[in-house]
Amino acid sequence: MKRGNTDRECVLGIDPGGTKIALAAVNRRGAILLRSEVPSPAMDGNAMLRALLELVAGGVASCAADDLHVKAIGIGAAGFILHHQGLLVESPNIAWSMLPLRDIVAERTGLPTFLDNDANVAAIGERFAGAARDVDDFVYLTVGTGIGGGAFIGGEVFRGHKWSAAEFGHITIEANGPECACGRRGCLEALASGTAMERRAVSVARENPGSLLYELSVSKPELVSGEAVSQAAQKGDPAALAAFADVAYYLGLGIVNLILIFDPEMVVLGGGVSRSGHLLLDGVRRTVAEHGIASVVRDVEIVVSTVGNDAGMMGAAVMAWEGIGG
Amino acid sequence: MKRGNTDRECVLGIDPGGTKIALAAVNRRGAILLRSEVPSPAMDGNAMLRALLELVAGGVASCAADDLHVKAIGIGAAGFILHHQGLLVESPNIAWSMLPLRDIVAERTGLPTFLDNDANVAAIGERFAGAARDVDDFVYLTVGTGIGGGAFIGGEVFRGHKWSAAEFGHITIEANGPECACGRRGCLEALASGTAMERRAVSVARENPGSLLYELSVSKPELVSGEAVSQAAQKGDPAALAAFADVAYYLGLGIVNLILIFDPEMVVLGGGVSRSGHLLLDGVRRTVAEHGIASVVRDVEIVVSTVGNDAGMMGAAVMAWEGIGG
Repeated sequence: MKRGNTDRECVLGIDPGGTKIALAAVNRRGAILLRSEVPSPAMDGNAMLRALLELVAGGVASCAADDLHVKAIGIGAAGFILHHQGLLVESPNIAWSMLPLRDIVAERTGLPTFLDNDANVAAIGERFAGAARDVDDFVYLTVGTGIGGGAFIGGEVFRGHKWSAAEFGHITIEANGPECACGRRGCLEALASGTAMERRAVSVARENPGSLLYELSVSKPELVSGEAVSQAAQKGDPAALAAFADVAYYLGLGIVNLILIFDPEMVVLGGGVSRSGHLLLDGVRRTVAEHGIASVVRDVEIVVSTVGNDAGMMGAAVMAWEGIGG
Repeated sequence: MKRGNTDRECVLGIDPGGTKIALAAVNRRGAILLRSEVPSPAMDGNAMLRALLELVAGGVASCAADDLHVKAIGIGAAGFILHHQGLLVESPNIAWSMLPLRDIVAERTGLPTFLDNDANVAAIGERFAGAARDVDDFVYLTVGTGIGGGAFIGGEVFRGHKWSAAEFGHITIEANGPECACGRRGCLEALASGTAMERRAVSVARENPGSLLYELSVSKPELVSGEAVSQAAQKGDPAALAAFADVAYYLGLGIVNLILIFDPEMVVLGGGVSRSGHLLLDGVRRTVAEHGIASVVRDVEIVVSTVGNDAGMMGAAVMAWEGIGG
């Protein structure tokens, strides 16, 4: 009887984003053995699916060429996903709807395939290899264009009854507040996402003709990006600092709510906005300390993701390993 | 070897409230075998503790006289409780603070004793014998003077890392909203509790000289009770209906948040306000349907507690049975 060489086994973790589709082959210990990516034809659902299937086929072939044996596939996609059916119901940034993505990939490759939303898999990645390593009870927020959420309870991803729990982006924190992309009002996402920060920066900059962002906000407000706001804030620009303070305030209020509800050990912030250095984190921590109930928030650590851009791929891979009992 | 008669075994479930301390002896099947209660000297912590200990001693003696054997004691108390330490940190309506209530009762009686907060034990009672029977994933809100919360996930009470999860009364749903008893602003409790409803009723009634509540609200606003508002609303009084609509709106927004976070099968409303008939429930359901994300809230049942006033005692008793592995 020949024993398989488990050192040469891997899974593919796939992150189909709005700008690129990224893939990594990950071994049982979580090491990335190879990477590959292609641009996303996100506005064309069929083209996007073809690109993903080609990337996967290429990944499997590259692994074979390297004498790596692919055991399973994990996919973490943005959007509303029915995990147990493997169905992507709708996505905010890819022209996919009611797509049975899991089964399509499984049939095409003949490999066990697992699908979950990007925030859940990022939380899985964070626990396996990031800030929440060995933390059993934590809340994860990805703050970028929108806000996504994930949670671990007792060492397990919390998925809820229909596997759609932890939709933190759309909790109301300001009844009758500003309109959200979802059509409702005062959602956390409408007040504390990167998009909310850019909108706020344009508005404050216009009232502050001396500010770094003033010219841009008047002539080309669509170019006031999170990146631009972050750079201006790091130079001490009052308009940019006000936009950051605003987002940190509302994000902090949302986090206080999650602490009251989950009683976690830790809150992890991921996504683009979290990579803006200490500006956001300091503001969030201050808001939580000032607006939280002291006995409840006191011992909760609030930290920034350490897995960064790879959290999605890595988490998808870990989900695949767990899915096959590896 | 003599085998004990398990039909004669019971536990005591105790509900130390702001107006009375209630006790029930409950058998393994959840039947209440005897009841007893005394008024609460709630403003005097020492007297309150003495009254509770006497009630317990009396309960044990009454059981013995009926040939019932008390196996354990469960207590569900309002307030912030460290369940694993058996410590009542503070209570909103009883002059207790930092009281090691579990150990005091256990030492005095020699019986295994379990302590948790009133909302958690009410949720336990609701699942054992009420609206959430056999429901594994549900959220429970007790809406009275304040708002308390409990949740079941996968058939287990959700307690969080430090056993203080599900503090739903103090989630912010209107940043910069009205002040709450906790000193913060825009908490669910400040907008949707019985107290909030009374406050709102006084304010609307004063602007409506023809309303049933007008005279009372001008001469003795402190007598505008939930009961009075409820009766006036049932007679179609516009001021009372407006107060109910307000509370239903904010309570509905809070429930939408909890559905997005927990993805439950069911939301159960308990506490005094929930006993106001269909007025509140209809308004809450309408708000959830109008303000929730349709695909998420669609299949979630929103119902009123069916255990009613006994939920606390019953839940405390079930907790005690579970605590001793019964």
